Amino acid sequence: MEILNDIDGMRLALEWAARGLYTTSPNPRIGCVIVRDGQVIGAGVTQAAGQDHAEVQALANAAARGNDVRGATAYVTLEPCNHHGRTPPCSDALVRAGLGRVVAAMTDPNPLVAGQGLAKLEAAGIAVTTGVLADEAYEMNIGFFSRMQRGKPWVRMKTAASLDGMTALHNGQSQWITGPAARADGHAWRARACAILTGIGTVKADDPQLNVRAVETPRQPRRIVVDSRLDISLDARILQGGGTWIVAAVANPEKEAQLRALGAEVILLPNAAGKVDLAALMLELGRRQINEVHVEAGTRLNGSLIREGCVDELLVYLAPTLLGDAQGMFALPALTDLKQQRTLQFHQIQQVGEDLRILARFAQRN
Amino acid sequence: MEILNDIDGMRLALEWAARGLYTTSPNPRIGCVIVRDGQVIGAGVTQAAGQDHAEVQALANAAARGNDVRGATAYVTLEPCNHHGRTPPCSDALVRAGLGRVVAAMTDPNPLVAGQGLAKLEAAGIAVTTGVLADEAYEMNIGFFSRMQRGKPWVRMKTAASLDGMTALHNGQSQWITGPAARADGHAWRARACAILTGIGTVKADDPQLNVRAVETPRQPRRIVVDSRLDISLDARILQGGGTWIVAAVANPEKEAQLRALGAEVILLPNAAGKVDLAALMLELGRRQINEVHVEAGTRLNGSLIREGCVDELLVYLAPTLLGDAQGMFALPALTDLKQQRTLQFHQIQQVGEDLRILARFAQRN
Repeated sequence: MEILNDIDGMRLALEWAARGLYTTSPNPRIGCVIVRDGQVIGAGVTQAAGQDHAEVQALANAAARGNDVRGATAYVTLEPCNHHGRTPPCSDALVRAGLGRVVAAMTDPNPLVAGQGLAKLEAAGIAVTTGVLADEAYEMNIGFFSRMQRGKPWVRMKTAASLDGMTALHNGQSQWITGPAARADGHAWRARACAILTGIGTVKADDPQLNVRAVETPRQPRRIVVDSRLDISLDARILQGGGTWIVAAVANPEKEAQLRALGAEVILLPNAAGKVDLAALMLELGRRQINEVHVEAGTRLNGSLIREGCVDELLVYLAPTLLGDAQGMFALPALTDLKQQRTLQFHQIQQVGEDLRILARFAQRN
Repeated sequence: MEILNDIDGMRLALEWAARGLYTTSPNPRIGCVIVRDGQVIGAGVTQAAGQDHAEVQALANAAARGNDVRGATAYVTLEPCNHHGRTPPCSDALVRAGLGRVVAAMTDPNPLVAGQGLAKLEAAGIAVTTGVLADEAYEMNIGFFSRMQRGKPWVRMKTAASLDGMTALHNGQSQWITGPAARADGHAWRARACAILTGIGTVKADDPQLNVRAVETPRQPRRIVVDSRLDISLDARILQGGGTWIVAAVANPEKEAQLRALGAEVILLPNAAGKVDLAALMLELGRRQINEVHVEAGTRLNGSLIREGCVDELLVYLAPTLLGDAQGMFALPALTDLKQQRTLQFHQIQQVGEDLRILARFAQRN
């Protein structure tokens, strides 16, 4: 593949970044491609946390292939880091390697970086360009940017409904409204999230595992259950394998100890009404380095999360079917005026198998 | 524009056909383009009923431009007619004009034509090709084909809803859920229909004119109200201008006379339950040469039409908004098993302004 211009180079770097979609968190997924005379001489992607960043991987890849990177151009999907985290700064590595030019899709919103990585490159005489395919690079790490800029994760709420907006029959039957392609696609969205969040209602009704099965991933997202009164059964499948976080509003030392014995952690976050403080939960998840939250919950928790401004986007699978009188998507109170409606923007529409996938974002970000 | 192959020629003929979208009914919208050596030497579109068909228009256009059509190729979006209707057969005109070749998108399902037009052309030594862009040609006249093949119109049900499937608040407020682009688009769909159908509930609640305003059209579709008990007010705006059909289940000579005095016609079609027999209504509309019916009704009539198998496709505008507890799209009874669901296929998805337009067809045609 010949790289004819910066767009080509960055598009390839984004493809490399996508290889880290299921693995790099809490770090962002970054790709790096090193190009000389239109030829790719090195490429890499961020490894799991604590291991190499993309730039270091790409330099090592070039070296392993016997390629000289001096004077070459590096395409990176985010500004190279300039701080000592779990790994040394990438900007230093690029300077040391003698790169001639660095093209970054966008600057790093991490206040520890925020332009300093690029400044160091320029100070070392490396030509720097930014703002190439910045939108795509932003989307790739929307959760990481959310956590850096707002201190809380990007919250994506998934639901599957009929064309008339129904998610389950009144008797609870909902398997399956959408087809196998949509269900596999839903698992890919689960896989890229740092955490999957549900409510005790769904755990009681469906006893889901809430892990990723339909796509290959070396990392399972954290599972989180909103369970105000710690009603969860110790046999619940979502506790299997351990690591589940149970978010409660009422302390219950005995039950907490039982849950801890199963490898779960109980987080107490009551609000004044004795329910879980959902907004506080999002900040707590930000502190715990959760970038993207994937919500798969029932009508009630869905409605509460939306009402409390905790949702950034809806991931709606619409099946070409009518269910009639049944359970809706979100328990939201009746409005008395259309001016009160909650407005979103359609961000992406795609047919998935026989179904339709709609990504819609709330107009006001929180 | 140079016509390099049959696809080019037929695509241009379809563009000509589209010029008749609002005017040709009950005739199909047909386009005809005459080509010699890659150059368009004549073109035409079906005129209003009783006037020229596309082929005759195209021949006249070529003559008016001083072009000799002998030996040229004619692209027609439907098999030329071979019967004396309100106009003489187009096949004769093409033979007389000495065309060398005729390319038809598809054969005419009208039993009075059904391949005979093409047979006559071949018998006269004209080379004939069919099946070029047949799908597009079918879509253009889907209502005409429905009437010819099933004796009843193609029924398209339009609804505008929030992403959570709600069409109005409980207090009835629904203006506006979708944006101006979607509303104008809705009027374009009205304009191409032969008739717009609604129910007495909508007439009472909204008093709509139910005519075409947002797009230019020389022809207004017929307006039809399903009004079992002849409850319609004589002041209803849908009666203004006359020509409205009121479909009732109960005779009421006095009210019928009042409605006739306003230019309306009352059609009595009771079923055993004392309501309007909707399936019989569709056959009656077929007899009355209605090709496409555009339904804009409320939840209840929408539900009845779907339950009784009278709807071929849904035209759903989804607005990027949530309304919560509100009025749904279709009053359909609760199911006890997902196997009972009514299955459709997504036929076309398009963003219109800020909204989404979904065209979905019922899997089993009636």
